[in-house]
Amino acid sequence: MSTLFERLEELYPEMVEIRRKLHAEPELSFHEVKTPAFIAEYLEGLGVEVKRGVGGRGVVGYIKGDLPGKTVALRADFDALPIQEDTGLDFASTVPGVMHACGHDGHTATLLVCAKVLMENRHQLKGTIVLIHQYAEELAPGGAIEMIKDGCLDGVDVIYGTHLWNPLPLGEVGYRSGPIMAAADRFEVTIQGRGGHGAAPHETVDAVAVGSSVVQNLQHVVSRQVDPLKSAVVTTASFHAGGPFNVIADTAQLVGTVRSFEEEVQELVITKMEQMIKGVSEGMGASYDYTYVKGYPAVVNDAVETERFAAVAKEIHAEELVVEIAPVMGGEDFAYYLQEVPGTFFFTGSGNPEIGADYPHHHPKFTFDEQAMLLAGKLLVQAAITYQED
Amino acid sequence: MSTLFERLEELYPEMVEIRRKLHAEPELSFHEVKTPAFIAEYLEGLGVEVKRGVGGRGVVGYIKGDLPGKTVALRADFDALPIQEDTGLDFASTVPGVMHACGHDGHTATLLVCAKVLMENRHQLKGTIVLIHQYAEELAPGGAIEMIKDGCLDGVDVIYGTHLWNPLPLGEVGYRSGPIMAAADRFEVTIQGRGGHGAAPHETVDAVAVGSSVVQNLQHVVSRQVDPLKSAVVTTASFHAGGPFNVIADTAQLVGTVRSFEEEVQELVITKMEQMIKGVSEGMGASYDYTYVKGYPAVVNDAVETERFAAVAKEIHAEELVVEIAPVMGGEDFAYYLQEVPGTFFFTGSGNPEIGADYPHHHPKFTFDEQAMLLAGKLLVQAAITYQED
Amino acid sequence: MSTLFERLEELYPEMVEIRRKLHAEPELSFHEVKTPAFIAEYLEGLGVEVKRGVGGRGVVGYIKGDLPGKTVALRADFDALPIQEDTGLDFASTVPGVMHACGHDGHTATLLVCAKVLMENRHQLKGTIVLIHQYAEELAPGGAIEMIKDGCLDGVDVIYGTHLWNPLPLGEVGYRSGPIMAAADRFEVTIQGRGGHGAAPHETVDAVAVGSSVVQNLQHVVSRQVDPLKSAVVTTASFHAGGPFNVIADTAQLVGTVRSFEEEVQELVITKMEQMIKGVSEGMGASYDYTYVKGYPAVVNDAVETERFAAVAKEIHAEELVVEIAPVMGGEDFAYYLQEVPGTFFFTGSGNPEIGADYPHHHPKFTFDEQAMLLAGKLLVQAAITYQED
Amino acid sequence: MSTLFERLEELYPEMVEIRRKLHAEPELSFHEVKTPAFIAEYLEGLGVEVKRGVGGRGVVGYIKGDLPGKTVALRADFDALPIQEDTGLDFASTVPGVMHACGHDGHTATLLVCAKVLMENRHQLKGTIVLIHQYAEELAPGGAIEMIKDGCLDGVDVIYGTHLWNPLPLGEVGYRSGPIMAAADRFEVTIQGRGGHGAAPHETVDAVAVGSSVVQNLQHVVSRQVDPLKSAVVTTASFHAGGPFNVIADTAQLVGTVRSFEEEVQELVITKMEQMIKGVSEGMGASYDYTYVKGYPAVVNDAVETERFAAVAKEIHAEELVVEIAPVMGGEDFAYYLQEVPGTFFFTGSGNPEIGADYPHHHPKFTFDEQAMLLAGKLLVQAAITYQED
Repeated sequence: MSTLFERLEELYPEMVEIRRKLHAEPELSFHEVKTPAFIAEYLEGLGVEVKRGVGGRGVVGYIKGDLPGKTVALRADFDALPIQEDTGLDFASTVPGVMHACGHDGHTATLLVCAKVLMENRHQLKGTIVLIHQYAEELAPGGAIEMIKDGCLDGVDVIYGTHLWNPLPLGEVGYRSGPIMAAADRFEVTIQGRGGHGAAPHETVDAVAVGSSVVQNLQHVVSRQVDPLKSAVVTTASFHAGGPFNVIADTAQLVGTVRSFEEEVQELVITKMEQMIKGVSEGMGASYDYTYVKGYPAVVNDAVETERFAAVAKEIHAEELVVEIAPVMGGEDFAYYLQEVPGTFFFTGSGNPEIGADYPHHHPKFTFDEQAMLLAGKLLVQAAITYQED
Repeated sequence: MSTLFERLEELYPEMVEIRRKLHAEPELSFHEVKTPAFIAEYLEGLGVEVKRGVGGRGVVGYIKGDLPGKTVALRADFDALPIQEDTGLDFASTVPGVMHACGHDGHTATLLVCAKVLMENRHQLKGTIVLIHQYAEELAPGGAIEMIKDGCLDGVDVIYGTHLWNPLPLGEVGYRSGPIMAAADRFEVTIQGRGGHGAAPHETVDAVAVGSSVVQNLQHVVSRQVDPLKSAVVTTASFHAGGPFNVIADTAQLVGTVRSFEEEVQELVITKMEQMIKGVSEGMGASYDYTYVKGYPAVVNDAVETERFAAVAKEIHAEELVVEIAPVMGGEDFAYYLQEVPGTFFFTGSGNPEIGADYPHHHPKFTFDEQAMLLAGKLLVQAAITYQED
Repeated sequence: MSTLFERLEELYPEMVEIRRKLHAEPELSFHEVKTPAFIAEYLEGLGVEVKRGVGGRGVVGYIKGDLPGKTVALRADFDALPIQEDTGLDFASTVPGVMHACGHDGHTATLLVCAKVLMENRHQLKGTIVLIHQYAEELAPGGAIEMIKDGCLDGVDVIYGTHLWNPLPLGEVGYRSGPIMAAADRFEVTIQGRGGHGAAPHETVDAVAVGSSVVQNLQHVVSRQVDPLKSAVVTTASFHAGGPFNVIADTAQLVGTVRSFEEEVQELVITKMEQMIKGVSEGMGASYDYTYVKGYPAVVNDAVETERFAAVAKEIHAEELVVEIAPVMGGEDFAYYLQEVPGTFFFTGSGNPEIGADYPHHHPKFTFDEQAMLLAGKLLVQAAITYQED
Repeated sequence: MSTLFERLEELYPEMVEIRRKLHAEPELSFHEVKTPAFIAEYLEGLGVEVKRGVGGRGVVGYIKGDLPGKTVALRADFDALPIQEDTGLDFASTVPGVMHACGHDGHTATLLVCAKVLMENRHQLKGTIVLIHQYAEELAPGGAIEMIKDGCLDGVDVIYGTHLWNPLPLGEVGYRSGPIMAAADRFEVTIQGRGGHGAAPHETVDAVAVGSSVVQNLQHVVSRQVDPLKSAVVTTASFHAGGPFNVIADTAQLVGTVRSFEEEVQELVITKMEQMIKGVSEGMGASYDYTYVKGYPAVVNDAVETERFAAVAKEIHAEELVVEIAPVMGGEDFAYYLQEVPGTFFFTGSGNPEIGADYPHHHPKFTFDEQAMLLAGKLLVQAAITYQED
């Protein structure tokens, strides 16, 4: 594959150019217009067969190899975030309050240039490459689920995707079989007590007292009720109740997040939380309202495909830089693709303190080392071709 | 009344003698045999009309004045406690493990000598004096309730009683209108969890964790649910759960006491406790068993009779030594008499550090200053006569 | 004193007129200008010797009797509240957002007309009457403390004051020896944790979790650490912490109130609260900031003066309508006068559902039955005269 | 290796015989006398070079192959438990209250027969086999640590060991790279409050209340302070405090266990627990005593050796029966060997409900399917030979 890699290296400046263009013109999730148009036009310019408006705002390209074979999907997301950029980069966002602060600009640039190289080499390709350019990854319910309903995985045998990842240094590649990103859910609890004068607690049901007891007792869900060999987080992120210092609060509002990697853990937490909230509230004479909104499910990598990918990565890159990583507690709607077809999602290290690429994702000063795009491109292309040739 | 008081003073040595005789031969609650026999014989020796075995083991004497008038009951209890005496007194208990550690020997000696003096003066008495010598005050359900059922209050217009009381110094008299002694109840909570291996909490319902949360949340009953202007105590006195260090406890046993002065507070606490125990237990997946055993109700003094008594006491004694006291958290079955007829229960100071009379009641070294008996006798006699003459 | 009472009755229409005039032109605490001017002019019109600007905005009048004797102070407050009136009365407030919603207009009208009657009868007066018209009772630190510093109690032997009180029906008078109104304090606790990602609690100190544990454990202060025979309230009125659902809160802000009747209870609560907040916070790795601001101290009535007042009230009014009441949990800066001289503060019933006088104090629809002013006037005048003549 | 396996199969009846003999004569940890003597004699009878009394009561045998090569240690433990057997087996324990309830009899029988076969084939062996017969595995500090100090690992290149394991069905083999068994520690907390009368909490420091708050707050250690991607268990197994229902407890005794797989997690838990216990206790006015006794560290399998072993196992046994298992929360002092040399510890399934081999380890009715010994023997022998030949 050295020819393909050489070509990718030659086209690296174009990758950078595309990335910077996208970076300067970010669009929010579910509001993408110019970005998908640009993607579609670029692919059409390459002669790739393109479907626009897939599942809403997605773009899907099809590169059919001259040789018969399997169908491999490669995915890149292209939405931005409601964050005011503070990087000082000369290609910084020109849209106030909107920023590519997670690297999706890089994902898209990478996949477009991969498309160019693969298209140029379609005579040797055994099978089809499906280019999934996804909108709205940052905002649940996300774009993946609608694109799948609209057929983007039809005929697909396997899918690969990557995230440029600042927590890993440039040059490292992170993989993991099984759960690699968590299910990230949201809950809201409203405790309805009965307010009253601060001097007369007996005439009230004190919502601050009830809410505090609920938070305290919710600790038991993780500490006693979830299998200690499994991971779960129950975070009450906010607690708001009460007003003047001498008035007992009528209601308390608790909002938080639950993270888990397995559906049975998630379901257990949902059930046990409600049981606890109900018990404590009723025990203290309050009523409650409990809303639990599931975010994306966990991203669960296929064991065979992950092993295949890791072998590929070690072969084309330095073995010691391809590392098995711990799961990441954040969420990704790549999860939905993996519920339909096997595949793997991996992290391509893009951290580099020397150029300021050490801010966390979603930070106003976030940027990544663009050289990571080249490695990401090689890994995606090689994974696809190896799969088709195996 | 100076004659009566002079006679009481003359007879003080006999009072002491009787008290010491009783002290040396204490009998446990519901096991009194020799004591009531002695009382009955003493009263009969005076010519008093006596009923034995009233309500079980009680003795009631009737002194009928020559003049018509009202009927006043005076009460003294005569049972002892299961405590090994450690006073070193030369008239100490001769019965191993049994002791008059609360002063009931003094109460009885006082009332017997009062009877003697009143009997001698029956020609001037306007009405009847009922001498209620009660058994089993120390052990619920107590003797009072049975003696009442058996008629000891029949025809009685008013009742007075006192307790020799070390927390007050000799010479002081304590009175209080309304609640003066608490209702003292007992509760038991059994938390039924599901035991298991210490390393596998998710397969269990951890009774130690549930029990701890129950105890924590029970604090709210007093801190938030009882009127802060009213008194209540909820004490979890013992917590027993679990065995080996690596086995999660199956059950937890909580035992404690509740103190209150008003029936509505008591009922509120009973209800709120159960609500809390139920809520917390069920919230954590455990079941529970809740037993609440009411002890004696609060001793609630009649306002009119207390005022009358206080006036009498101030008149015959030094005004500054007759003090309104705070309620006492202990219990007394004198409560039952006051549910039937008006009256008052007061404390006669018997504390005197110089003679070692400063140990608390129920202590193995408890003793009281015997001079308190003389004051107690004067107060009871004068209260009775004043009531009849008013 | 029938002459004085007849005169007060004759002047009742003027009392009503003054009250309504004041009601229509309320002034906020520490912003009183027209009200003290009106009071001073009224008193000067009567020939009363007046000091203006006492302790800031107070007015003090001196009525010197022709006969020698003691000096009695009578106090009325005159500030209003930041409440938008919603009574629909034809003499309702003409000042937007400001309202006499607590009855101070009535207090002032009562005392002015009393002054008129006392001034008319100064030839018979044995001693001096000091009329303390106080500003800023509603807002700590209040006006009393400054007026005292400025000499309003100089030479005063005793002080009386009253509050028109809707919780008591018109016609009833409430008195109590000892604490009658609580010390009402304010506390603020800031828990400083260390915020972070909702999925990574181990990298944070979760301020919601710490704050909840603090609230839970603060229950013990009242349930276990304060004498159950004494009253205390610890209310955490508000709990505010955290923002987005997936971000662990950095800080938690707790604000609340403590009520107590005795300084030793207050001091105990202050100390025990800090000990608990410190222990729990540090136990969980957080730091804390604890601010405790004492409000007015408890209003503690003098026993002798209260008894004297109760006797007077029973004599000039129906005995069964003069009742000993439970303490009230609210605060009053009358407390400061009673720290300097003996006296009593009592409640004059002004509730009357038939005329809508059944809303609580500080309610936008609050009004009182004006006839209560006449009774209040008689009680104050008679208390003063009796004291001087005793 | 078919010859070796055929020989092992031929000798299976002897394996059973030895196991049953040992089963009938169990000896407690640190009290083993006859068992090590029997082992030593058996090995000497085979001509194996034997050291007795290694590290106290251990026995080590050395089988030197005729060919040069590496040194492989195989370990079996031989102590029994203080449990009264209730299996009804005809070879049941003859020692009252002592029982081989964990399968160590089987481990020993397996390794002895392996020794016989290996000794018979020493001419083909490339290197040395060290037979480590360990005493006192069941009771910390265990026998391994002393045997290591006494040189049992001198010159050893790799070590293998197995546990017959009822949770896995007969025929299955469980392996895992990295932590496979937890560090199992013990803690004790004594809360020192100040006891007193149940009606007077304010005069006490209530040890039940403090202890309950400690247990509640300790939940945060796992729920908030340990990395959710890592495993930890903090179990308060027992809570004992208090006596009579009306006496506030003076002290509370909490005993429990902590389980972890990584030393940094273990150290974090130790530190955070103390911080929490200290904070809560001091916050409530109590003092505390905290004792933490580390048990065996986690058993951490070497990645390379585990992979090698898994490959061997799949080759000589059915691939689908050789499974990667979740870590087990129990402890094992095999951990110490793996701190010194690489190796792996695996589980040999011995569960079989049809013959009653479905009771958990340490249960009075525990027994295992003896056929598991044959598989265990083959696995140990083959692992050793493969290592030497690789």
